[in-house]
Amino acid sequence: MNLAVGVIGAGIMGTEHARILCEDTPGARLAAICDADESRARAAGRGQSQVFSDPHALIFSDKVDAVVIAAPDSTHKELALACIEAGKPVLCEKPLAVTAAEAIEVVEAEVAKGRKLVQVGYMRRFDPPYVDMRRVRESGGIGDPVILHNVHRNAVVPEWFTGAMSVTNAFVHEIDISRWLLGAEMISAQAHCGVGGDPLLVTMETDRGEIVSTEVFMNCRYGYHVHAQLVGRDGTIETAVPITTLTNASGRHEFGFPDNWVPRFRTAYANQMKAWVAAAAGGRASDGANAWDGYVTTSIAEQVVAALEMQSRVRLSLMTRPSFYD
Amino acid sequence: MNLAVGVIGAGIMGTEHARILCEDTPGARLAAICDADESRARAAGRGQSQVFSDPHALIFSDKVDAVVIAAPDSTHKELALACIEAGKPVLCEKPLAVTAAEAIEVVEAEVAKGRKLVQVGYMRRFDPPYVDMRRVRESGGIGDPVILHNVHRNAVVPEWFTGAMSVTNAFVHEIDISRWLLGAEMISAQAHCGVGGDPLLVTMETDRGEIVSTEVFMNCRYGYHVHAQLVGRDGTIETAVPITTLTNASGRHEFGFPDNWVPRFRTAYANQMKAWVAAAAGGRASDGANAWDGYVTTSIAEQVVAALEMQSRVRLSLMTRPSFYD
Amino acid sequence: MNLAVGVIGAGIMGTEHARILCEDTPGARLAAICDADESRARAAGRGQSQVFSDPHALIFSDKVDAVVIAAPDSTHKELALACIEAGKPVLCEKPLAVTAAEAIEVVEAEVAKGRKLVQVGYMRRFDPPYVDMRRVRESGGIGDPVILHNVHRNAVVPEWFTGAMSVTNAFVHEIDISRWLLGAEMISAQAHCGVGGDPLLVTMETDRGEIVSTEVFMNCRYGYHVHAQLVGRDGTIETAVPITTLTNASGRHEFGFPDNWVPRFRTAYANQMKAWVAAAAGGRASDGANAWDGYVTTSIAEQVVAALEMQSRVRLSLMTRPSFYD
Amino acid sequence: MNLAVGVIGAGIMGTEHARILCEDTPGARLAAICDADESRARAAGRGQSQVFSDPHALIFSDKVDAVVIAAPDSTHKELALACIEAGKPVLCEKPLAVTAAEAIEVVEAEVAKGRKLVQVGYMRRFDPPYVDMRRVRESGGIGDPVILHNVHRNAVVPEWFTGAMSVTNAFVHEIDISRWLLGAEMISAQAHCGVGGDPLLVTMETDRGEIVSTEVFMNCRYGYHVHAQLVGRDGTIETAVPITTLTNASGRHEFGFPDNWVPRFRTAYANQMKAWVAAAAGGRASDGANAWDGYVTTSIAEQVVAALEMQSRVRLSLMTRPSFYD
Repeated sequence: MNLAVGVIGAGIMGTEHARILCEDTPGARLAAICDADESRARAAGRGQSQVFSDPHALIFSDKVDAVVIAAPDSTHKELALACIEAGKPVLCEKPLAVTAAEAIEVVEAEVAKGRKLVQVGYMRRFDPPYVDMRRVRESGGIGDPVILHNVHRNAVVPEWFTGAMSVTNAFVHEIDISRWLLGAEMISAQAHCGVGGDPLLVTMETDRGEIVSTEVFMNCRYGYHVHAQLVGRDGTIETAVPITTLTNASGRHEFGFPDNWVPRFRTAYANQMKAWVAAAAGGRASDGANAWDGYVTTSIAEQVVAALEMQSRVRLSLMTRPSFYD
Repeated sequence: MNLAVGVIGAGIMGTEHARILCEDTPGARLAAICDADESRARAAGRGQSQVFSDPHALIFSDKVDAVVIAAPDSTHKELALACIEAGKPVLCEKPLAVTAAEAIEVVEAEVAKGRKLVQVGYMRRFDPPYVDMRRVRESGGIGDPVILHNVHRNAVVPEWFTGAMSVTNAFVHEIDISRWLLGAEMISAQAHCGVGGDPLLVTMETDRGEIVSTEVFMNCRYGYHVHAQLVGRDGTIETAVPITTLTNASGRHEFGFPDNWVPRFRTAYANQMKAWVAAAAGGRASDGANAWDGYVTTSIAEQVVAALEMQSRVRLSLMTRPSFYD
Repeated sequence: MNLAVGVIGAGIMGTEHARILCEDTPGARLAAICDADESRARAAGRGQSQVFSDPHALIFSDKVDAVVIAAPDSTHKELALACIEAGKPVLCEKPLAVTAAEAIEVVEAEVAKGRKLVQVGYMRRFDPPYVDMRRVRESGGIGDPVILHNVHRNAVVPEWFTGAMSVTNAFVHEIDISRWLLGAEMISAQAHCGVGGDPLLVTMETDRGEIVSTEVFMNCRYGYHVHAQLVGRDGTIETAVPITTLTNASGRHEFGFPDNWVPRFRTAYANQMKAWVAAAAGGRASDGANAWDGYVTTSIAEQVVAALEMQSRVRLSLMTRPSFYD
Repeated sequence: MNLAVGVIGAGIMGTEHARILCEDTPGARLAAICDADESRARAAGRGQSQVFSDPHALIFSDKVDAVVIAAPDSTHKELALACIEAGKPVLCEKPLAVTAAEAIEVVEAEVAKGRKLVQVGYMRRFDPPYVDMRRVRESGGIGDPVILHNVHRNAVVPEWFTGAMSVTNAFVHEIDISRWLLGAEMISAQAHCGVGGDPLLVTMETDRGEIVSTEVFMNCRYGYHVHAQLVGRDGTIETAVPITTLTNASGRHEFGFPDNWVPRFRTAYANQMKAWVAAAAGGRASDGANAWDGYVTTSIAEQVVAALEMQSRVRLSLMTRPSFYD
């Protein structure tokens, strides 16, 4: 029997998750979809799912086995808490919550419930390049890691999107993937602010002494380009831009960048959904980012935003990790 | 309601098709599997499908809506004819038949039936690099094509595999994809035989005067490497080796080749199945290689084998295409 | 004491050779320059060399130790013969002569003189990528060679330049470099003519059974692009486009091709001159292409032009090599 | 008449400079060479130059027009001062001096002399990739610069070479080339120290707000690898590893890194010498790094070493630039 999934939010990501459920995820079906704009919900629902306008009705519907949250960030915490209350597995788009304090509420609710129900949609953990890098790191193929260089470049954003927004919206992916790639925790951070507040260069250190250096550039203009190179004692491994063809034209040898994160991470999103559906159907906790990871990332981002104004390194502080997440 | 698919053959490709149906193909389910070796069939069937030892029983079972043929080449014709008789859509692994004469039998049966039921598993037509090349060619992005360079390199094969076998087993893919990429028909062929019969270099010309040059090297040792570059009047487009990461190690910057065709064409096989299932479920003819394409490829391969001994160009001859395939 | 070099011809290549002698060749000086257009000769002579209008006067001048011929092709034979008569080392731009019969005259004159005085300017033998390929082939690094793929693409030429001209002007480089890379002689050739006579695809076989496949495309439009891949039993080695930088711009990752052969082969021309000057100054025969190589290339080109009209493979014939060249 | 050059020091770099003068530098001759070990000096002198054991005797010899200093770092200041006193152009291997205070002595002596006689051997300013990057930056091809990422990786060094030594020996190249690429001055620096003191990550800011991030890794093991990517508002440009060939072998597509800085920067060293000889012969100041640049680099390196122990950003201070260098 296919897992009945309800999707909350029919914007870009909600529609994409609905499409993935229908086209790329055997074992699941799009049972319900919810959006304040019902016509938008109906379009994303593809005529095969129940349409809701109240997300709580969807969450508590007995026609829904598991929930995807793709509603505005400010609603994530409340909706995730409802899913925990309903005892239903939830894949919550990042961030888990807009403040560390809110994220702690979700962590504490999950611990109280005693079941790992929450996965946060840090989809890069399912992206083949990053999966390959982590596998090589774990196998010792490049020796002990010493530096991780991340580059996060976006073609163009509205003016209000830089500064703090580039940390809470874009840099959060780099926090999560760096922790996951290295299997280590960040203990300090420092931000250098480029001319006009974009780009940023953030340097973090891990509890094992590795250095994580990340450029976040929201208006690089030339395209959407995410890159990571992990430097180990014996060699390096880096992500390749996923391309299918190369051309010679107009004096140049070239390949194109994806336009934005949707094509770049299409496989990652599909793999994430497959893994989450399989875990949910099997009554297991997924192996994606959990509520604790969601809290840590939001908390570090919050502290990096505070550090943006400062001239020196900030020691990062986190709540004590509940043994539930060991 | 999901399409009930029966798979005939539980060898490497049959097992892989079964896996794809279960893991990667929403809208279908693995309803039945058949192999002379029933334990092998059961393993590939994943406990969710009926096991047959008689392929005709599977084909005519009313629990089966559509059939995948992955049995030995010599059985393809007979099984495809049975599927046509049963009026069921069939995805037949290449080749359609082992001789042109046999392939004609299938074409004629399909024409007589009056329904396009047969798709031949030339999966490259669903491989993103080739799809991208064809799209660019059709859009005029590189101007009119003038040369297509194909390279087909396999790491290592048994001794009996070279010569004629490298044409009928490997080169057939190059015939099919060249016809499809160019949207043209081959009219002549000439083969140069390397030292010891491996590699071969085959040069074909199309009915529009384009040149198709193909290296087939079954024992290149360094890995599995399929490459194509299409040269047009205004530029070129070529396939990229699909990679996820790049490494610096031991004095070198490098990436790895896939071990064989299964990882190289994983996405192509999955996309092929999705398209075939969608067409079969919708009662439409699929847009993969049809019976006519299967006949043409087998026939050209047969003529190239004959040309291997000769010193000169061979003019290719084909039966007249039934208007059914216009 | 620096070698006194006289350059005949002050066109593009003569001027470039004069520049190389002045800027890149310690041990030589530009002593004399000759052109029917004296003002052009003076400009290329940089105020430091005697200007001639009669090439024979330059050749026999006692102020000139060695001669570079960069005059029109039709004069090469006669000027090379004069250099042999004068007993002076000569670096003759390719081709050695416009017909095989003329080239034989030069070979016979050199044999009669009993000194290897002639080097033909097939500069690719001094190009780092080709030098590297040959070194790897000789060291056994890729096993025995089986196929050599050459691509010779030029951005654009006048209409009269295609067909026979693309053989005698462009393809000659591929003949020479293929013989040199493989250390083998060509025994057969066959030409496929693309739509409108451009591109050509020429397939040759060597006396050891290796296959040499060459695309010559004089109007590829996208840039000047020369490429070679040597396929051996254990691996392949290919030329890299010599680049200094890579850019990300306007949605693409890219590098540029050189505009024409001058920047592409700048290092090759400089290395060729250095090696020739050192040999001439030392009274040794140079290790570039000699008169025999010049004859072979012109003769094969002549036979390939004849084969352009034919549908079948042509067995190549050459005069018997004088033992002088053993 | 060729410029008579005397080389002080016949170690690795002195021998290489002597070789470059003889083989790659028309317009110069190796007139003299000096080393405490006379047999080493004779070997490097190639039998064509006067051998000295006292560097001052070489500097003041009337057979010497210009001097290359490739002696131990601790002697640079004193020898450069002697060249200034002698009024002879000098190409001094980096660093100009081992402390900022010593470098100021050289600057002040040159200012007092009133002639720009000193060039410091920061040869990257003549390396084609860096030259190309600067040209593109100046032409506006990538828009205003915002970040420069430098990577300086060396295969292996003795244990005493890391920490301060990796700043004063390796990072100095990055300081100089960053200033030159950006045409800006550094105003702050901060160092993050990797596990065991190697690698370092140094972040600097320029007086225009650009960020310069540099990894220095002296024991990266996999090879010698220097890389820079300049990020502008409209695109990026980065250095390509200079390669001649690519291979497919043992399952991988690959190219090799140079073993160390000598092959990597062979062209840069030769171009630097050509430019310096031309300037010296023409009585002009060279356009390489001058004494002021040499002072700035040594001074910044000194301050970065001090910053290695600290947790915060250091504001860099420099003496006021004499108007002589405007």
